[in-house]
Amino acid sequence: MGEFELISRYFAAAPCAQAGDGVALGIGDDCALLALAPGEQLAVSTDTLVSGVHFPAVPDPFLLGQRSLAVAVSDLAAMGAQPLGFTLALTLPDFSAQWLGRYAEGLQQMAQRCAIRLVGGDTTRGPLSLTLTVLGKVPGGQALTRGGARPGELFCVGGVLGEAAGALPFVLGERSERSAAPGVAGPLLAHYWAPQPQLALGQALRGRASAAIDISDGLLADAGHIAEASGVAVHIERSRLPLSDALVAFAGEQGAFDAALAGGDDYVLAFSLPAQHVQALQLAGQPVHVIGQVHAGHGVTLLSDDGRDITPAKRGYQHFRGPM
Amino acid sequence: MGEFELISRYFAAAPCAQAGDGVALGIGDDCALLALAPGEQLAVSTDTLVSGVHFPAVPDPFLLGQRSLAVAVSDLAAMGAQPLGFTLALTLPDFSAQWLGRYAEGLQQMAQRCAIRLVGGDTTRGPLSLTLTVLGKVPGGQALTRGGARPGELFCVGGVLGEAAGALPFVLGERSERSAAPGVAGPLLAHYWAPQPQLALGQALRGRASAAIDISDGLLADAGHIAEASGVAVHIERSRLPLSDALVAFAGEQGAFDAALAGGDDYVLAFSLPAQHVQALQLAGQPVHVIGQVHAGHGVTLLSDDGRDITPAKRGYQHFRGPM
Repeated sequence: MGEFELISRYFAAAPCAQAGDGVALGIGDDCALLALAPGEQLAVSTDTLVSGVHFPAVPDPFLLGQRSLAVAVSDLAAMGAQPLGFTLALTLPDFSAQWLGRYAEGLQQMAQRCAIRLVGGDTTRGPLSLTLTVLGKVPGGQALTRGGARPGELFCVGGVLGEAAGALPFVLGERSERSAAPGVAGPLLAHYWAPQPQLALGQALRGRASAAIDISDGLLADAGHIAEASGVAVHIERSRLPLSDALVAFAGEQGAFDAALAGGDDYVLAFSLPAQHVQALQLAGQPVHVIGQVHAGHGVTLLSDDGRDITPAKRGYQHFRGPM
Repeated sequence: MGEFELISRYFAAAPCAQAGDGVALGIGDDCALLALAPGEQLAVSTDTLVSGVHFPAVPDPFLLGQRSLAVAVSDLAAMGAQPLGFTLALTLPDFSAQWLGRYAEGLQQMAQRCAIRLVGGDTTRGPLSLTLTVLGKVPGGQALTRGGARPGELFCVGGVLGEAAGALPFVLGERSERSAAPGVAGPLLAHYWAPQPQLALGQALRGRASAAIDISDGLLADAGHIAEASGVAVHIERSRLPLSDALVAFAGEQGAFDAALAGGDDYVLAFSLPAQHVQALQLAGQPVHVIGQVHAGHGVTLLSDDGRDITPAKRGYQHFRGPM
C-alpha cells in the first residue's frame, strides 16, 4: 500500500467520513451516493486554497483544516442550504504523518460543527493545494441567490466585520501576538483561522431574505455583487457597521472601518431583507444587523453620519496574497 | 476585472456552462443548484490531475481538457449514473489566453459528448493542477458498487484493453509517432488522451451487473478491488482478453498482454454479470466481453489456455508518473 493510499485510509477513518444522514454510500467506491428528499435541490460549490497564495506557507495544519472547510461551507450558508457532504482533493509535496494528523483533526472539528460528512476525494503528490467541493440541500425554489434584492428593503449583515482582516498582520508575521495588547490577537486570529459559516442564519433567511452572499472579498465588493446581480443600488451607512471593540482598540477607528469595508475573509452573510422580517429574526436569536438600504439604481454607496457619499475609491480585498 | 475573473467568465460562456436539464442554477452565484427526480440519488466523485505527476508538463491543452473530464466522468459510468454537472478547480501559474482557449475547447467537446454541464469552480494562481468534481444521478438503490459480485457470475470488460498504456512511449516522448508503423500511434494516443466514459454501458448494467468499476489502475488491480470489496475470487482467462490488432502489432503479443493486465488509464468498465444477461446486453449493442468468472475465495488469478495459474507478481499500474 502506497503512502497516498494510507492517507486516504487515514481520512476514511475520521468520524466525519462515516455514512448516514443523507449519505447512502461514503468513501471507498467509484462515487459516493447522497439522498435528497422529494422536492429538495442540491447546492454545490468548489473552493481551492493554494499554499503561498491563499494562506501562508507553514500554518498549523489544524488551523488550515478548520479554515479550508469553513470557507467552502460558507457558500452553502449563503444559499440557505443545509450541509450534506464534501469531497477533499489534497495535493501534498510529501507524506508527513504529523501534518496530516493535525490537518485531519482541524477538518474533523469543523465538519462536526457544520454537520457535514467527508464523502470522497483524491490525494495526490504535488505542490500543496486543497480543493473542497461542498454539497448541501435546500427546499426547491427556496435557495437564496444574489439576484433578488428589491428597492425599499433593508441591507443587513450577520455579524461584526473586519476581524479576519484585522488578524492579517499576525497571520503574515508582520506583528507578533505579544506586541498587541493582551487579549487582542486571539479573537482576531480566531476569526481568520476558524470562521463560523452562518448556516443557521442562512436557513432562517429562506423565504425571508431576497438576496444573500457570504462576505469573502470584503463588504463593499460583495454588496456590489448583490447590487449587480439584482440590478439595484445598495446604500450602506458607515455608522451602522458592526465593529468589535477588540478591532477598534487594535487598529484604531479608521483602520477598523477600512477592515470592515474592504477586508476579506469575514465569512458572515450579507443580505437584503424586507423590514417586516427583522424583528422576528432577531427575537429568534439570529444575528441581523441592519447597515443600510436597497434603492433603485446601481452600485454600492457608503454614506457618512450626515448623509454624504464617502465611498472609498478602492473596493478591493485584502486576502493574504503571496508573491506570485 | 482581474485576469482570473476573466478566466471564470471565459468558462462561463462555454455552451456546456449554460443551465438546463437538471441544472436549475449554473455558474455565477455562491452555489449551483441541481434538481433530482424523486427517488433518485446523487453520485459524486472528485479527481485531481497534477502537471508532471499525472500528465506530461506541456501537452496540447485541448487534449488535457478532454482527458481531465473523461477521467472524472468515468467514475459516474462505473456507478451506472447519468451525468448532471461538474465543477472545475483550475490552478494556473499564469494567464495564457491560448492555453485556456484550447483547454476550454477540449473540455467543451468532452462535456458535450458526455451530456454534462459545467456548474461552478474556482480559478486560482499556482502550480498547474486540475480538480474536477462530477455529479450524476442514479435511481435509488440501483447504483453499481464494487461490492456485489457473487460466485458463479461471469467477469466481463467493456472494451479492448491496454491501448492507453500502449500509447505511453509516445505520450512520454520516448518514441516518436513517426517511428511506429503508419496508423499505429494515432489510435493508441486517442485512447490515452480521449478515453470515452462508458456511460451507456454503465446505465445498461443497472439491475443486471452485480458489481462494477472503471479500469484506471489496470485490469488486475481493479479486478482486485471488486474481489476485495465483494469478498470473492476473480479468475481471468488470458486468452479471452480483448486486445486490438494495433496494440499487438506495435507492442508484440507479450507486450500487449502486459499492457492489458497492468496498464492503467483504460477507462473501460470491468463488471460481474449473471450469465443470463450477457446475450441481451450484447444484442442491445453493449460491448460486453466475458473474460472470466467469479468464484468463492479471494484475490485475482490469471489462467493460461490450459488452466495454469500464470498470475504475474507485479500488479501495479503504469500511469504516467513524473520524477516526484
